[in-house]
Amino acid sequence: MDKADIRAFRRWHRDAALRARDAGFDIIYVYAGHRMTLAQHFMLPHMNQRSDEYGGSLENRVRLTRELLEDTKEAVGDTCGVAFRFAVDEMLGGDGMQAQEEGRAVVEMLADLPDLWDVNVCEWANDSVTTRFEPQDGYQNDYISFVKSVTHKPVVGVGRLTSPDMMLSMVRKGIVDFIGGAARPSIADPFLPPLKIEQGRIDEIRECIGCNICIMADSVGVPIRCTQNPTMGEEWRRGWHPPERIAPREAETEALVIGAGPAGLECAMQLARRGYEVTLAEAGPELGGRVLAESRLPGLGGAWGGRVRDYRINDLRQRANVNIYTNSDLDADQVLELGIANVFVATGATWRADGIGRNTLRKPPVIGGANAHVLTPPDDIMAGTLPPPGGPVAVYDDDHAYIAGGVIAEKLALAGHKVIYVTPPESLVSSFTTLTLEQHRIQARLLELGVDIRCNHVLKSLDGGTMQIACGFTDRPQHVPCSSAVLVTERTRQTALFDALRGGRGGLTTLELIGDAAGPALIADAVFSGHKAARDFDARNRRWTGTGSAAR
Amino acid sequence: MDKADIRAFRRWHRDAALRARDAGFDIIYVYAGHRMTLAQHFMLPHMNQRSDEYGGSLENRVRLTRELLEDTKEAVGDTCGVAFRFAVDEMLGGDGMQAQEEGRAVVEMLADLPDLWDVNVCEWANDSVTTRFEPQDGYQNDYISFVKSVTHKPVVGVGRLTSPDMMLSMVRKGIVDFIGGAARPSIADPFLPPLKIEQGRIDEIRECIGCNICIMADSVGVPIRCTQNPTMGEEWRRGWHPPERIAPREAETEALVIGAGPAGLECAMQLARRGYEVTLAEAGPELGGRVLAESRLPGLGGAWGGRVRDYRINDLRQRANVNIYTNSDLDADQVLELGIANVFVATGATWRADGIGRNTLRKPPVIGGANAHVLTPPDDIMAGTLPPPGGPVAVYDDDHAYIAGGVIAEKLALAGHKVIYVTPPESLVSSFTTLTLEQHRIQARLLELGVDIRCNHVLKSLDGGTMQIACGFTDRPQHVPCSSAVLVTERTRQTALFDALRGGRGGLTTLELIGDAAGPALIADAVFSGHKAARDFDARNRRWTGTGSAAR
Repeated sequence: MDKADIRAFRRWHRDAALRARDAGFDIIYVYAGHRMTLAQHFMLPHMNQRSDEYGGSLENRVRLTRELLEDTKEAVGDTCGVAFRFAVDEMLGGDGMQAQEEGRAVVEMLADLPDLWDVNVCEWANDSVTTRFEPQDGYQNDYISFVKSVTHKPVVGVGRLTSPDMMLSMVRKGIVDFIGGAARPSIADPFLPPLKIEQGRIDEIRECIGCNICIMADSVGVPIRCTQNPTMGEEWRRGWHPPERIAPREAETEALVIGAGPAGLECAMQLARRGYEVTLAEAGPELGGRVLAESRLPGLGGAWGGRVRDYRINDLRQRANVNIYTNSDLDADQVLELGIANVFVATGATWRADGIGRNTLRKPPVIGGANAHVLTPPDDIMAGTLPPPGGPVAVYDDDHAYIAGGVIAEKLALAGHKVIYVTPPESLVSSFTTLTLEQHRIQARLLELGVDIRCNHVLKSLDGGTMQIACGFTDRPQHVPCSSAVLVTERTRQTALFDALRGGRGGLTTLELIGDAAGPALIADAVFSGHKAARDFDARNRRWTGTGSAAR
Repeated sequence: MDKADIRAFRRWHRDAALRARDAGFDIIYVYAGHRMTLAQHFMLPHMNQRSDEYGGSLENRVRLTRELLEDTKEAVGDTCGVAFRFAVDEMLGGDGMQAQEEGRAVVEMLADLPDLWDVNVCEWANDSVTTRFEPQDGYQNDYISFVKSVTHKPVVGVGRLTSPDMMLSMVRKGIVDFIGGAARPSIADPFLPPLKIEQGRIDEIRECIGCNICIMADSVGVPIRCTQNPTMGEEWRRGWHPPERIAPREAETEALVIGAGPAGLECAMQLARRGYEVTLAEAGPELGGRVLAESRLPGLGGAWGGRVRDYRINDLRQRANVNIYTNSDLDADQVLELGIANVFVATGATWRADGIGRNTLRKPPVIGGANAHVLTPPDDIMAGTLPPPGGPVAVYDDDHAYIAGGVIAEKLALAGHKVIYVTPPESLVSSFTTLTLEQHRIQARLLELGVDIRCNHVLKSLDGGTMQIACGFTDRPQHVPCSSAVLVTERTRQTALFDALRGGRGGLTTLELIGDAAGPALIADAVFSGHKAARDFDARNRRWTGTGSAAR
């Protein structure tokens, strides 16, 4: 960029501020965060190699930012607040800008120039980290806490803030003047920051689990989804607004929900809110379904695994119109004997053990009969049953998502197993997690744990302590000696009860399959499925009964 | 899917056909191609494991398609043509559906049911293959030629058809009744199929080079671009419509274009069309710039490399208002002596040799001084100068795009070198080419040529016959012994002439930097830059002179 380019850039920035003001905005940002704007690029020595007054010293590197702030204040400062978003730390240690070094110096230089300091760390994977890698909200406080001591202007900060106690403590300790860090938490519960806190309804806050499924949707350009809030993104399209309002019951009076995983819990909770007499029957001793199992995997306990379950159980247990039965593994006759006309089946899915998955559909692998004992299903691992100690464990990951081989390989490696991780055409460990900003951390963690990673290889056979795999590009074979193997491939819908009920449905008015039993997918999808079934149930404008998969 | 799901699906399909008819469409498709619709999924044995009348025998697997065709004809057949898109061959040999096996049997079963057969191969990377991997247009003919002998209904086919001779021969030989396969060619030249052929302007056809930059844009959801047709996607936004019309000249009368690469050729051609006296000065002995060099790489000769150059040179050579000078390496004084007031500088870019690129910006690699002779710049490779024979050659690819390390590694391996290919954080060879549907073929080819591929590794140093690299996840070092190294990293803009002219511009009215000299990028970007400069030049509503990069 020569000087003419810089002048042009400043003019465009100023014009943009004027347009924003004319469009009615009250606060206009100058942005130097997420390593994504020219203002920040000029500040960072490795990106700025200029030899003129915009390069070299920090003062020179900050010059463009100062000019943008001055331009913006001059243009719109009479009617708009001019905020400055600034990443105080690149989270690269000495290899990048650090909060206590140049990060602080930038704040000192510009101290009272912006009307508001909005401070965070970069880049996005650090700013919006998941609970798997950062369980504690307010995780940016150590980096941003110096800012208020340097400026007289108000300071706002972020950090997946779900807890009113944390928010209050940040204000009381003088870290921030107000809370900006409830973006994901406000997706999970739009009433969190003002309404529920104001009304003292703290127990009713539906807390963000920090899974970044919202960011996944953003990354692939599809409508946003939220694991905790199934109405997110459907407010206008389906009329699911306001989020926590749901129509009262119509003609029907009661419903049975079978299975208390994410879909069953959500469905039962929404049916109860609509005023039905709800019976929730769970085959196992505990409520939670897949979330119970997945919570036992490294990094997926705590907020990530617990909140989907806890929020709904807490709600259900307070309602007089809900009866919950655990250890109730009902068959079709028992269901019909209950005499409840409306049945929602949320019996979940289990992981296949035959190696069939998206990349082995055409050529199913040969799983050796006599040696099938080498197999450990992913469900067993999640239930806490690890392969016998001894030789290496091969993990074949044809799922690529968060739950997948990545976290199972991590669990096995942490337990002391030598692990070989194999994944077909995908070239990265748990490639889907690129979309949740976790991939780099996952692959780094496995490498640091000594896991032997073989990407781009497809499962061919498993027999006599050898997994045979082949290159996804050339089909060249490779032999992986292993004393045990975990195949993380496809899940099988558990529909036996649904099929039996459908076969001889004695007067059921409604029979609907929901959640993973209708189509194995993300927890967010299961919650959505249960929610939608409860919304659509008993509505005059809709009466179609199918497996639920087509009904979406 | 149970029967209720299938019934629902058929109803939705029928409703869609009715909506399409009501919206005014004349031809409604039933689609079983690109391995992307339910109709095709039901047909393929590896995806259809049903045990009812929709699974098992081919007749059963075709049942859903037959029903969709019947439903559609019944719904809209009185007023609309019902076409059937069918991929006759999966291009997987015996592992998939083959044209001479079940592919043919499907056509026989449904022979006269559709009003039109639109036949191709799948999946997309085979259907829309690039010239790098399939130089000949009409490349699907061998697969689809049987169709006309089986049905009485008209047949249409595809295959990147740019040549009127090929089109005519396909109709004459009875392969198709009409031409559907000029999608990419019609992007390159919207007047190709009807107008220019009808008017006998065969020499004026601007032929598709088969680079799939159009598909790249589609894949990342940005406005479409075309290497050959810079007006593509800008018809409405910039008013560049119709594509080959351009405003006649205004006040100015002449222009000098320096550099005859893609940007310079396009700029000169459009200025000439506008009626200016155009002088085109090229430093080298031949016209073409980077395209000349890139044409020497494997698969990039022929249509890919030649057409960008040939179309423009052919046009320029026919114009009386164009003077072309080769071997004219002008300095600033010589430029000013020419006395032409409007100067466009298209001096291109050269590859850096210091290892600096997108992933080494923060920590520049150490390139050993005394041993710098191990370096072979990519420009040398493209000019035909290969490293000395002997030990292995390390190719470091921090470009990731089509030109990049991938094709250079291929050229070196084909020349008999032992090649180690290293690429930083990207996990695939030439990862950008995923977007042009070429990545799988490129990585397979390198593996088959015995190239040693090390993804996810960053260059740290190069000294004394060793390239030191480090894991992008863990920073763990690796040593790569090599007797020569090619660093495919960043390109440096060649702006010396522009800078000198700007410094002492003796009365120039216009001085503009275009193409790679303004910002190194794709050939498509260079053509676009040259085109835009010619359009914007001498227009009353715009007069701003900068480096061109900010002017975009």
